[in-house]
Amino acid sequence: MTADLLPPDEPAAPRLRATVLGAGSWGTTFAAVMADAGCDVTVWGRDEKTCRQIADEHRNEAYLPGVELPWRITATTDAHAAVRGADVVAVAVPSQQARTVLEPLRDAVGPRTVVVSLMKGVELSTDQRMSEVVAEALAIDASRVAVVSGPNLAREIARRQPTATVIASTSDETARLVARACASAYFRPYTNPDVVGVELCGAVKNVIALAVGISQGRGLGYNTMATVITRGLVEITRLGLALGADAETFPGLAGMGDLMATCASPDSRNHTLGGHIGRGMTLDEAIAATGGTAEGVKSCRSVLELATSLGVEMPITHAVVRVLHEGLPVDQLAPLLLARPHKAEGA
Amino acid sequence: MTADLLPPDEPAAPRLRATVLGAGSWGTTFAAVMADAGCDVTVWGRDEKTCRQIADEHRNEAYLPGVELPWRITATTDAHAAVRGADVVAVAVPSQQARTVLEPLRDAVGPRTVVVSLMKGVELSTDQRMSEVVAEALAIDASRVAVVSGPNLAREIARRQPTATVIASTSDETARLVARACASAYFRPYTNPDVVGVELCGAVKNVIALAVGISQGRGLGYNTMATVITRGLVEITRLGLALGADAETFPGLAGMGDLMATCASPDSRNHTLGGHIGRGMTLDEAIAATGGTAEGVKSCRSVLELATSLGVEMPITHAVVRVLHEGLPVDQLAPLLLARPHKAEGA
Repeated sequence: MTADLLPPDEPAAPRLRATVLGAGSWGTTFAAVMADAGCDVTVWGRDEKTCRQIADEHRNEAYLPGVELPWRITATTDAHAAVRGADVVAVAVPSQQARTVLEPLRDAVGPRTVVVSLMKGVELSTDQRMSEVVAEALAIDASRVAVVSGPNLAREIARRQPTATVIASTSDETARLVARACASAYFRPYTNPDVVGVELCGAVKNVIALAVGISQGRGLGYNTMATVITRGLVEITRLGLALGADAETFPGLAGMGDLMATCASPDSRNHTLGGHIGRGMTLDEAIAATGGTAEGVKSCRSVLELATSLGVEMPITHAVVRVLHEGLPVDQLAPLLLARPHKAEGA
Repeated sequence: MTADLLPPDEPAAPRLRATVLGAGSWGTTFAAVMADAGCDVTVWGRDEKTCRQIADEHRNEAYLPGVELPWRITATTDAHAAVRGADVVAVAVPSQQARTVLEPLRDAVGPRTVVVSLMKGVELSTDQRMSEVVAEALAIDASRVAVVSGPNLAREIARRQPTATVIASTSDETARLVARACASAYFRPYTNPDVVGVELCGAVKNVIALAVGISQGRGLGYNTMATVITRGLVEITRLGLALGADAETFPGLAGMGDLMATCASPDSRNHTLGGHIGRGMTLDEAIAATGGTAEGVKSCRSVLELATSLGVEMPITHAVVRVLHEGLPVDQLAPLLLARPHKAEGA
């Protein structure tokens, strides 16, 4: 695997024009990251009030309360205008809406523009990874698409806390352009050609976060958490290898790093929803208490189906499916989480 | 790597006689684990009152308040009597005292007795790993020594919360005997022949826990924690490979699993002491506030010396040494924790 961190003393990047589609927490944060890296940044959002707040008052109170945004960010509700002429377009809309948002923008995206997926999960109607959705919706080659993933809780990055991240693309040139567009003293990108592995980690981590949440909701402590995360990474790795991913991606920042940050943070919806299940709520009650469903609730079945079709065992994912969707009492979960794998400790 | 979890439906082990040297938190807990697995267990401790409490009242209030111990544990202050006739002797005394405790017991240890190290760290006077100290002090072959390590916070296991662990030995027969002596519904052992890797993880994790504690003391969040742990595991792996360890040990339970549990738990002394440093105390003040020093404070320099002698880069360990022992201001730590590695993201 090639993976390079840009040296902090590299000369400033030529001023790039960057656009972010999506004015939520992660989209706005990544806009700030690129502005801090020296780009001229435009954010597209549906909500006029949010756009005005970002452009005129340099803040986004709904998603990043208390954070002052860099002045080099502007915002608009006109997606075509936002995308036209951009060197880099980062997409941070809800996963299931990406295709609908992007398809009308095909003509606005220039022939050399690089597109970055900040989204996680899979498109449920097609089972495609988000980078595949982006390339197909915009009718561009996969080599012009990159994926950003890692231990990247938006609220912490928005406060400029130091973080490393992974920029994955089949094209090293694309990955390096994106890395230049976002690298700063507090945001350190590593490039990685393993797009499949990086996106798989981003999707399956939500299922493992549900399992961790459930076990913590049952009152189990750090040993169980660490065991579930460790064994969870083993089963993600097993699936990834069957799909042709690079084994080294999984213990890295986009695998273990993101999984750990997600499972430790009280902000994660999957973690929170799992906690409600562990404390005895039904799935409907837990979704209501969380204020909406969580990615892993929908994707755990797709992941298990994919694994089954490839002959890959995923005992933790299977246990989560049984508890959430097949009526297994939650007090029977713990032994399943430690269930015997048929093979070795490693993948 | 061979690594087998004993199936839960395996017939009960023949009743083994097991002894634990050390009546602290982990020693007493491991005694309870072996008793729950069906062994007759004797605990040796220096303190007569503690021994009477364990044997007569089935509790150890000083170290495991509120925990009821299995009735199949007895206790004594006579180490020779405790060791004589035992099939398994587990050692859980302070690392730097192990040699002094064990040497007088050479004649009491039977010719087929298996000895288990529950200790972590290195002997400072010799730089030996604890399994090496055990074998040398008792004058037994390394094949009769095993090491137990994993995400194993004693207080949680004492409450019978589900946990997996690693039993490492150069002899598969020895590892399997120890696994049989401790396997139960809540305690799942995996065997692993990589003693060097398992012990290295147990020693260096304390240095990484210091770095995590320092960054949390500085107010940094989960992204930084996850990044430091992920990059920390990369540098442990790099050192391990230079010492001939198996690469698969590091993302496993004794590596990533133990590191994660240690860095998440507020009970870890290294983590706590690091937090005090991060909040601006001097090392002496932090040691006083923690109520004594922590393993990583002593071992970080040995680890760095070892790494330097092998030409291995360990930027996080180096940053911890500089802050603790070389007067680097703690506010200069953060950039060092994300410092550029010369090689790839993987080890």
